[in-house]
Amino acid sequence: MYVYGKNVAKELFNNNKTIYKAYLQENLKGSNIDNMLTKNNVKTAYLSKKDLDKITKENHQGVILEIDDYNYYSLDEALKNASSNPFIVILDHIEDPHNFGAIIRTCEAAKVDFIIIPKNRSASVNATVMKTSAGALSNVKIVMVTNLNNTIRKLKDSGYWIVGTDMDTNVSYDDLDYDMPICLIIGSEGFGMSKLVKDNCDFIVSIPMYGKVNSLNASVASAIIIYEVLEKRKKVSCEK
Amino acid sequence: MYVYGKNVAKELFNNNKTIYKAYLQENLKGSNIDNMLTKNNVKTAYLSKKDLDKITKENHQGVILEIDDYNYYSLDEALKNASSNPFIVILDHIEDPHNFGAIIRTCEAAKVDFIIIPKNRSASVNATVMKTSAGALSNVKIVMVTNLNNTIRKLKDSGYWIVGTDMDTNVSYDDLDYDMPICLIIGSEGFGMSKLVKDNCDFIVSIPMYGKVNSLNASVASAIIIYEVLEKRKKVSCEK
Repeated sequence: MYVYGKNVAKELFNNNKTIYKAYLQENLKGSNIDNMLTKNNVKTAYLSKKDLDKITKENHQGVILEIDDYNYYSLDEALKNASSNPFIVILDHIEDPHNFGAIIRTCEAAKVDFIIIPKNRSASVNATVMKTSAGALSNVKIVMVTNLNNTIRKLKDSGYWIVGTDMDTNVSYDDLDYDMPICLIIGSEGFGMSKLVKDNCDFIVSIPMYGKVNSLNASVASAIIIYEVLEKRKKVSCEK
Repeated sequence: MYVYGKNVAKELFNNNKTIYKAYLQENLKGSNIDNMLTKNNVKTAYLSKKDLDKITKENHQGVILEIDDYNYYSLDEALKNASSNPFIVILDHIEDPHNFGAIIRTCEAAKVDFIIIPKNRSASVNATVMKTSAGALSNVKIVMVTNLNNTIRKLKDSGYWIVGTDMDTNVSYDDLDYDMPICLIIGSEGFGMSKLVKDNCDFIVSIPMYGKVNSLNASVASAIIIYEVLEKRKKVSCEK
């Protein structure tokens, strides 16, 4: 896939990722990035801004790189390597790559064990996600599954408690103590969780809203609950 | 200013805002939005997508509207109308309009009294902010000031406690009880709070991060702390 941006390039170098080909804007000839590419024997083409714009519409900053597609983890592999008090996040059809990227960043900061996304009708790991996640992607596992409901059943069998999020409940996100293996489900931007997924939840929590607009940005809502889980677990571990 | 997008148009109608002129993509002739504009006697021009793209680079969905510039509130006016246990947010040079819009949306949901932004080197209320805030803008006051440090001193004199955010502190955001008039300061995406602003804070708190990447998206970080303030105040009020 193509990825873009100066910071993404630096991150790829730092993580020793293979870059198959580089497309640089002509005025970056001799720049640090150009020298780094030459040092690493990356085949580089120098193009005009107009030609780079044809490859991606996004703000590429004169740097477009061709790398391997993201290699998703399998659920079994991720479950096997989960921590002793695991915390995983399922994205139930998040479609905006900026939201997906921001959620990856929050999950990395919160040391979430891994993130599960469905194969269809969902943002997948692409260049925008990579750029928005600001380097976090190389440090969080993403699992892609074909059927969310089968996955949830499997997680339940493995001892996870499924916590869904929905406007339509009186349970506030800060009412639970989260001192158990947690799988948090974040609904899609427009429609929330799908009905079947909702039916499969052990708990459904909401974030209280006191204004007239009754929704939060999906990455913002995720972050509020993810950090609440950490905060509650910290408290429980202090009391023990 | 020009604003764009179908939802923004609906929001303007709902809030009875004056629309001076509308530019619609030709294929929207006779659509609901077109009929609504005609009903409200808005002068409408029908343009090709190419011509609309010349007005804004953003995803306009075929709808561009000309409205009044945002009318900022004055600090005195906003302070006078603040609630009895006020909570205000200062954005110390947030530059990304998407972050600004998402923060407005969170502040609206959390019933923050008002938001203060500096006049220079800061995202101001524009079309992108309006779209990202998803309707919240009509329900949150934005105050624009020329000097943040003078403003902070004035807030201190008015009984506010100034809570800054910074990576470089051992005080976690969940260590305070926030049961006092609070002014929360969110630093800029790249540089955090400026030094002078930092020196003016009564408390400085951080969000613990357990991964390798040491920053969160600005709108995500704001939301985590804003909702912590609500949560702590809820607890304090239950205990009273």
